[in-house]
Amino acid sequence: MLHRKDSDLGGAGEPPVVTVGSLDRYDGKVVRLRGWLYQGRSSGKIAFLMLRDGTGIVQCVAGRADVGDEMFDTARHATRESAIEVTGAVKKDDRAPGGFELLLSAFDVVSAAAEFPIGKKSHGTSFLMDHRHLWLRSKRPHAILRIRSTVSLAIRSFFDREGFTLLDAPIFTPAACEGTSTLFETDYFDTKAYLTQSGQLYMEAGAMAFRKVYCFGPTFRAEKSKTRRHLTEFWMLEPEMAYADLDDAVELAEHMVTDVTRVVLDRNAADLELLERDRSKLEAIAPPFPRITYDEALAILAEKGMAVKWGDDFGGDDETVLAESFDKPVFVWKWPKEAKAFYMKSDPDDDRYVLGVDLLAPEGYGEIIGGGERTDDLAYLEKQIDAHGLEPESFAWYTDLRRYGSVPHSGFGMGLERFVGWLCGTHHVRETIPFPRTINRLYP
Amino acid sequence: MLHRKDSDLGGAGEPPVVTVGSLDRYDGKVVRLRGWLYQGRSSGKIAFLMLRDGTGIVQCVAGRADVGDEMFDTARHATRESAIEVTGAVKKDDRAPGGFELLLSAFDVVSAAAEFPIGKKSHGTSFLMDHRHLWLRSKRPHAILRIRSTVSLAIRSFFDREGFTLLDAPIFTPAACEGTSTLFETDYFDTKAYLTQSGQLYMEAGAMAFRKVYCFGPTFRAEKSKTRRHLTEFWMLEPEMAYADLDDAVELAEHMVTDVTRVVLDRNAADLELLERDRSKLEAIAPPFPRITYDEALAILAEKGMAVKWGDDFGGDDETVLAESFDKPVFVWKWPKEAKAFYMKSDPDDDRYVLGVDLLAPEGYGEIIGGGERTDDLAYLEKQIDAHGLEPESFAWYTDLRRYGSVPHSGFGMGLERFVGWLCGTHHVRETIPFPRTINRLYP
Repeated sequence: MLHRKDSDLGGAGEPPVVTVGSLDRYDGKVVRLRGWLYQGRSSGKIAFLMLRDGTGIVQCVAGRADVGDEMFDTARHATRESAIEVTGAVKKDDRAPGGFELLLSAFDVVSAAAEFPIGKKSHGTSFLMDHRHLWLRSKRPHAILRIRSTVSLAIRSFFDREGFTLLDAPIFTPAACEGTSTLFETDYFDTKAYLTQSGQLYMEAGAMAFRKVYCFGPTFRAEKSKTRRHLTEFWMLEPEMAYADLDDAVELAEHMVTDVTRVVLDRNAADLELLERDRSKLEAIAPPFPRITYDEALAILAEKGMAVKWGDDFGGDDETVLAESFDKPVFVWKWPKEAKAFYMKSDPDDDRYVLGVDLLAPEGYGEIIGGGERTDDLAYLEKQIDAHGLEPESFAWYTDLRRYGSVPHSGFGMGLERFVGWLCGTHHVRETIPFPRTINRLYP
Repeated sequence: MLHRKDSDLGGAGEPPVVTVGSLDRYDGKVVRLRGWLYQGRSSGKIAFLMLRDGTGIVQCVAGRADVGDEMFDTARHATRESAIEVTGAVKKDDRAPGGFELLLSAFDVVSAAAEFPIGKKSHGTSFLMDHRHLWLRSKRPHAILRIRSTVSLAIRSFFDREGFTLLDAPIFTPAACEGTSTLFETDYFDTKAYLTQSGQLYMEAGAMAFRKVYCFGPTFRAEKSKTRRHLTEFWMLEPEMAYADLDDAVELAEHMVTDVTRVVLDRNAADLELLERDRSKLEAIAPPFPRITYDEALAILAEKGMAVKWGDDFGGDDETVLAESFDKPVFVWKWPKEAKAFYMKSDPDDDRYVLGVDLLAPEGYGEIIGGGERTDDLAYLEKQIDAHGLEPESFAWYTDLRRYGSVPHSGFGMGLERFVGWLCGTHHVRETIPFPRTINRLYP
């Protein structure tokens, strides 16, 4: 803590103001806590009050005899989510959630809450999402979003250690990378701008300058899909490396996934426990991940009675079935050209294929990473731009990368919400972002 | 390095492929480097080739006798920015940039570059920005964006250490926080969505759940300003703390600015040197920063002949003059109500003022931080929403935060590009973001 410490807030002789997360340093001492009343129950003589302060939840025990009639009655009748300040002695208690409880000598209401709309009864998701600004205070969203916070920083730290430069991609783009049908557009001073779907093309420019770069920011898809895997606004990580091939991208992906998973296991043990996440599934994650070709994947699917036409991408169910065949994430590589984007490099062994790769998460979480080697051949790229009906002038800067010192390069994109969803074991990605945006949701 | 090492790429008996950044580990050894020809000059017998590989630049010396006629002529005639691979002995040389040079035994062109549009002659900014995807390869953008990368991670690491949870704010918002005139809007499945100008209101919801939160992502302003301080798309950092007052926000800001500045001084010494940044100006940054009230600021300005009407915000010139009176960043606090946003808390000592604060960077870089304490009073907030002509229903969730356990809270917003601009000593913020977006620029 560089800035003013909680404990400095106490006046002369007053107990220090501390947080629930730091109670282990105050065993046996009298402290003050400032937070909110998470829940409470009481008899005529004793009240058990769960105080949450954002760093944790602690049980506070108020005896009528200890705090006096007035404070006791205030405590008994305090509404849920009222802002409260309490003073009490910290007592180690292994049975208590968090390992400590507080024996109160004082209880004050900072501000009383109106009747809190989120109760103990179960609510529908739509109701909870309408109250997302309040629902964030509950244990489950709290745990998931703390894991998201850990993941975001662990990813950035990983790439920093690996020598990557962060290169934020622009959000406003003049052209569509993969067709305009799922693009959000805006009037940009009398011209049109689109909200980015991917920073990859910009990262390719960056890789030629910095060798290894990544971007990690919001991306947008105006998809009308109402599946549990789709958001209109989501965060995407996109590393790109010059002088690197498909193998390099695959190895980078598996090491990053492993590293970040370990950081979460280490830092968010309590959150994973609250989410009842099976840790053993995450502890099993270690390189190398299995690698199968697209054709092998098709054979596995056919065996299980799921016929996929050669050349088609997999559906969500196909991904689930494929991933269930492995206890680690599985790479599917060497894809038919028509299933992948225009910039993919042709497989030199068979030009019906491209050097693309997807990573499917286990336990039915589906594709979390897509990437591969990009073409470094100018003539081929121009042919592909033409074949995909894209406007050459919009991609002039992108083809420039093949005019001036073209080199083999590769990278991938990972959707943050799907990755966090898998780590947390959540069913729907909307829980993995603080304020989800879907076709039906723009509020709060 | 977790994944496949460069040096593993060498076949049996072949010299290892390494990077310029790691040459200090190979003094006296023969290595291969893969990169691009940054520039070259030669006589009939010897060529001096500057190879850049994204991790650094090294001078390669090719003697006709050492590499043979064919390779020598290839090297002599290679065009700038051609992708090249060289083999040579690493030789420590304190006079060489980077401390090493390479005495070549082989030179190969991976792919020849067409005539590179960015030459040694000086170009106008518009030309360079049209070629931003190629200009990134030059030393100056490289240095600035490496500093930006350091700053981004240092900020996140600081807040992580301080116990903040990252809570990404949404980009699509249903309502305008500070009026619609500078908002970008998009059709959102037959309703209207606006691109966020600030995540602050969402961070206030987060602070009530997590106590200390921050967001750090792109924000948007459709401003027609063509000043050197304006972009339409820029990254903003916004921390918010519950049970915290104006002093807490001020102390957090000065400690963060100090911490990040020190990380840059440490990690980006070579970049600062290339930019000819006066390190002593940055080394002087340490808490506490001077604090003056708005009224004191007005008096300073009046003394210098710059009359500002009480109640008005400062202009860029005013900020420059104010900041020049101090050798550290200076806080200006206690602002007239009409100069600040609707959610600011009234000064309890004088309700013509609010508890807002700006941080002005020295050397004429102007406002880099704006923040303060937010009102925790429901009735006052509702009155302010009404007085500012905002739609109450759009802010229902926001006013909820004062209905359910309202507490004192504070925070601030910092524009990344202005901060990086100050650290780098760049004149215009457009250089501090990889692909700047301004009223006239949406490409590349």
